[in-house]
Amino acid sequence: MLVVMKPNASQAEIDAVVDKIRALGLTAHAIPGAQRVAIGITGNKGALEGGLFSSLPGVADTIRVSNPFKLVSREVKPDDTVIHVGEAQLGGKAIAVIAGPCSVESKEQLLEAARGVKRHGATFLRGGAFKPRTSPYEFQGLGEEGLKLLALAREATGLKVVTEVMDADDLAMCVEYADVLQIGARNMQNFALLRKLGAVKKPILLKRGPSATIREFLMAAEYILSNGNYQVALCERGIRTFENMTRNTLDLNAVPVLKALSHLPVVVDPSHGIGLRQHVPAMARAAVAAGADALIIEVHPCPEQALSDGHQSLAVPEFGELMQQVRIVASALARPF
Amino acid sequence: MLVVMKPNASQAEIDAVVDKIRALGLTAHAIPGAQRVAIGITGNKGALEGGLFSSLPGVADTIRVSNPFKLVSREVKPDDTVIHVGEAQLGGKAIAVIAGPCSVESKEQLLEAARGVKRHGATFLRGGAFKPRTSPYEFQGLGEEGLKLLALAREATGLKVVTEVMDADDLAMCVEYADVLQIGARNMQNFALLRKLGAVKKPILLKRGPSATIREFLMAAEYILSNGNYQVALCERGIRTFENMTRNTLDLNAVPVLKALSHLPVVVDPSHGIGLRQHVPAMARAAVAAGADALIIEVHPCPEQALSDGHQSLAVPEFGELMQQVRIVASALARPF
Amino acid sequence: MLVVMKPNASQAEIDAVVDKIRALGLTAHAIPGAQRVAIGITGNKGALEGGLFSSLPGVADTIRVSNPFKLVSREVKPDDTVIHVGEAQLGGKAIAVIAGPCSVESKEQLLEAARGVKRHGATFLRGGAFKPRTSPYEFQGLGEEGLKLLALAREATGLKVVTEVMDADDLAMCVEYADVLQIGARNMQNFALLRKLGAVKKPILLKRGPSATIREFLMAAEYILSNGNYQVALCERGIRTFENMTRNTLDLNAVPVLKALSHLPVVVDPSHGIGLRQHVPAMARAAVAAGADALIIEVHPCPEQALSDGHQSLAVPEFGELMQQVRIVASALARPF
Amino acid sequence: MLVVMKPNASQAEIDAVVDKIRALGLTAHAIPGAQRVAIGITGNKGALEGGLFSSLPGVADTIRVSNPFKLVSREVKPDDTVIHVGEAQLGGKAIAVIAGPCSVESKEQLLEAARGVKRHGATFLRGGAFKPRTSPYEFQGLGEEGLKLLALAREATGLKVVTEVMDADDLAMCVEYADVLQIGARNMQNFALLRKLGAVKKPILLKRGPSATIREFLMAAEYILSNGNYQVALCERGIRTFENMTRNTLDLNAVPVLKALSHLPVVVDPSHGIGLRQHVPAMARAAVAAGADALIIEVHPCPEQALSDGHQSLAVPEFGELMQQVRIVASALARPF
Repeated sequence: MLVVMKPNASQAEIDAVVDKIRALGLTAHAIPGAQRVAIGITGNKGALEGGLFSSLPGVADTIRVSNPFKLVSREVKPDDTVIHVGEAQLGGKAIAVIAGPCSVESKEQLLEAARGVKRHGATFLRGGAFKPRTSPYEFQGLGEEGLKLLALAREATGLKVVTEVMDADDLAMCVEYADVLQIGARNMQNFALLRKLGAVKKPILLKRGPSATIREFLMAAEYILSNGNYQVALCERGIRTFENMTRNTLDLNAVPVLKALSHLPVVVDPSHGIGLRQHVPAMARAAVAAGADALIIEVHPCPEQALSDGHQSLAVPEFGELMQQVRIVASALARPF
Repeated sequence: MLVVMKPNASQAEIDAVVDKIRALGLTAHAIPGAQRVAIGITGNKGALEGGLFSSLPGVADTIRVSNPFKLVSREVKPDDTVIHVGEAQLGGKAIAVIAGPCSVESKEQLLEAARGVKRHGATFLRGGAFKPRTSPYEFQGLGEEGLKLLALAREATGLKVVTEVMDADDLAMCVEYADVLQIGARNMQNFALLRKLGAVKKPILLKRGPSATIREFLMAAEYILSNGNYQVALCERGIRTFENMTRNTLDLNAVPVLKALSHLPVVVDPSHGIGLRQHVPAMARAAVAAGADALIIEVHPCPEQALSDGHQSLAVPEFGELMQQVRIVASALARPF
Repeated sequence: MLVVMKPNASQAEIDAVVDKIRALGLTAHAIPGAQRVAIGITGNKGALEGGLFSSLPGVADTIRVSNPFKLVSREVKPDDTVIHVGEAQLGGKAIAVIAGPCSVESKEQLLEAARGVKRHGATFLRGGAFKPRTSPYEFQGLGEEGLKLLALAREATGLKVVTEVMDADDLAMCVEYADVLQIGARNMQNFALLRKLGAVKKPILLKRGPSATIREFLMAAEYILSNGNYQVALCERGIRTFENMTRNTLDLNAVPVLKALSHLPVVVDPSHGIGLRQHVPAMARAAVAAGADALIIEVHPCPEQALSDGHQSLAVPEFGELMQQVRIVASALARPF
Repeated sequence: MLVVMKPNASQAEIDAVVDKIRALGLTAHAIPGAQRVAIGITGNKGALEGGLFSSLPGVADTIRVSNPFKLVSREVKPDDTVIHVGEAQLGGKAIAVIAGPCSVESKEQLLEAARGVKRHGATFLRGGAFKPRTSPYEFQGLGEEGLKLLALAREATGLKVVTEVMDADDLAMCVEYADVLQIGARNMQNFALLRKLGAVKKPILLKRGPSATIREFLMAAEYILSNGNYQVALCERGIRTFENMTRNTLDLNAVPVLKALSHLPVVVDPSHGIGLRQHVPAMARAAVAAGADALIIEVHPCPEQALSDGHQSLAVPEFGELMQQVRIVASALARPF
């Protein structure tokens, strides 16, 4: 951390900061500038609270120098993490595709979707049994019945099941039925839940919050890893900006940045990222070209009858078309698909 | 809802939309424009899913016309909701102040803070026993020990206790010790938790998420009301924008907008809203002038030793100064204080 | 500036950074941390280009320590700047009000507005002769004819005239007719225009760009001051965020921050800042309570017939009501009005 | 436009809106809903000002139904616009690359950059002679001397020259030397300048403003087309968001959306879009995969000595590497390169 003094800070004020640093058992490095003095701090193990210094007289600002994440960091583990789920995998050279409906609605709907996405090359089936909805009056998911249908679809197709856990109460049940647990964007900083996921023996697909910085996103993953679960995939799904023609702004910048900072696999969700059915394939291609390890795509046997997200769900033949396009890009970049 | 057709939509495409509307038991109103046809839908009870129509051939866009909130709405209940907690209250003509430390750190710290804020006119004591922290390596709160200290401080001062519930697991414990339960910004769309709060017999202080629209904020409150708890106060605490000189951007626009749309009391948190200790009083004055019903202010007996939020916490004499300034504005606007 | 090295940077890489700093005639201060080395730079006059170092091997990041603004800074000039325009003034203890229509539409419209706002206490008349409109098909203003009408209204009422310059071509003409030149939000970083304003002998009302940081806003003012014109007022008028119930998000945080960093007067535009007629008075009150030196308010004799901004313009009696409320807050805070 | 009445609007209020619509020579279509009445308006040629209705009694909201752009729209001109500049071109099946330094600094620097980018397949040379800089104390460009060097580099390499016009004063001079005129992001809504570009006989590369919506971006292009110049290319270069690890957030969503809405060529600038040298190639690949027609890339013979944008400029060999990767993606998607 760097403590920047005001231009007119007195020597006594500078000394007081230095004394406080030393009292914390740390080392102070005063840097006398032309306009002002800055004081570097070294010797701390974790991040320092800026407020320790910002309210001392004469202090203008405190600047954090090191990144606060550790276990998720490539500095700590240089090799890519690969998550194996049976023969399916997230991370590594091959690109994986997770596909399926937004919500599990019925046995017929789910099986038709599962068979369709399997036929076109998906290895994971997505489907929500517990649905976070902005309004309490919208369809909230089938609950355990939905989980059972997902397990049935797994049996029927061999696809691995990815489903969202919304609440610690449902965690044990989701662990029982699912292969990968998804944490939704709105729960990315539900720290109590994140801690519990640390004790779970299933991989986690952690979605970035719509207003989470990349740093906060990595710190949310750090909560899970530091509580004992190292099987975490990071999912960029669009951030909230002023642009309103698209549902979110898919932040593909995050893909190379995350890959550079962290060893965890990076998944991209173009369905939520743009929110417009006809443009999902373009963003799926772009995500792979940017270096994503996996895609998650909403597919519905009949999007115009979907109970949720119909405007961004692909019909099965459209998904087949998307897969063909993505395959072309993946092959060109020498990524098995 | 309004379904807008493409300029070149065929009559058959228009008819298909109309047929689908009728099949849902609703009424279609075609409006033939110079450039394109729009079709109004009436007869629906709740909100319609846009995806029902957006993927039909010839459809350009779907536009929601009505606001989706009901119970929180002033259209449903024109009179202001006033939350009574013993003699203290949130809402109504008088302006309430909730003050205290970010985290409960020790008996001495809490009692000193509580006595200080009481002396200057606060009626509620804030203090976190469970702390949501971006990093798992930062201080996470004292847990039940913190709640006990809050109860002790209540006994010592008569202040009512406001504290954050982070997780359903801690809910019963928090209900036991606290007078008002705070839901933090990061949990605003933790729908599972919101639903449980509907069954609780304590008032809720719901903080706006850093990237929540006013509409989503009201819908989060709607979750609590529609599950049976009508005692909800809405707290604006700053939204996330590109500006980085301040911790958040305090959205005071939200104050008159919320007061117009909803009957619920509106609280403003200038401490998080600007995040700079020296500017908290200016924003507290502004909040009251904009029409806020209450303020929540971080106060610490010794901000430079705070374990969290020291850079935005006021010392007790600074809080006294703030209260004097706020009193002047409140009196001028004929709001008892 | 601080150059932060990667954790695994070699001594040779560190030495290369130090050598480059010295080659620029500056001083290097290496701070060996537990995880990584940071190198402080002192001795530079202006801001250093981060790219000078960021592409050297072993460099992780460069961090700017000092603020880049000088002439606008309170560190350089501690006393408030007060802009005098005849007996009217912007800045200082008294609060000024600039009011009038968005666009000058006709002699009758302008005179009625001018007389109305004068009657209720405004000292400046606003009105656009050149209008920046998102669409080329919308009303673009009356041009010189509008300027003449403004001059006429000044004669009739004694109000000082504030009007927007959109282009260097119109600058001489605007200087001839107006008392204060407004630079619109979309032109805040039209640096060619800003430089020309440096040579003008009229005060400038500089509006903050909708996505400009406070730092960029101050740097835009710095362009004008450093080119010779010290009469600049800073106008906060709302920033662009994800919130879409309001036209912009009025950033009142900027008021105390700007007042602390700069000696220039701070004006607030609640009309654009919230964009909803019925809520303009609440935000005007809040702006004054936050410490604004002046307000700029859109007023139209008949808002429902306005050619632009009718949804956020007040009728004259509504403006009278606003002035009464603002007067109450200003008096309470001992600011003459 | 749709005028939405309040739930409790009286019949007289509804009639007043209908009367006003008719008085404007337009047609009103009242749609009686369960909760409220909405009134559709047809018969208008251009966009209607919302304020015409929003201040009438009983009106809750006004909603724009049609998009306001015309000449830039694919509805008006279904075929792609291709801009020909000698043998080079922007738009069409082939992907073009514009490359070169941020600023023209010297003859040697520019020629070395030009020869380097030519060798690796660029067909256009970029280079700024007039530089928009946040601070007045930073390097502002060489002016006409820079333009002459660009012309010299064109002669030496055959590359077509793209350079930024910052001001109408420099327009004639830029037209004389350049092949394509760039309008920078900060000038996207400098409407006076846009109008003048309508009369120019050179193609325009229009950059999206950092906080411009896609709609506003298209309307800015509409200014140029409606003033007579149909040779406009749209350049996405990153928008401003809360994320601060990257310079901007490259909005690749905008690529398929712009291609669907407009016939104009779409260029992507990954250099500004991510602002981190090592990640520019990933974003260049992603842009092409998303459907971009051209790329604009900052290349400097020696980035660590660049006077501007060194942190995001590629050295020539790095650019060669980028081109190879982009070629692979372009070929896979059957786009000549």
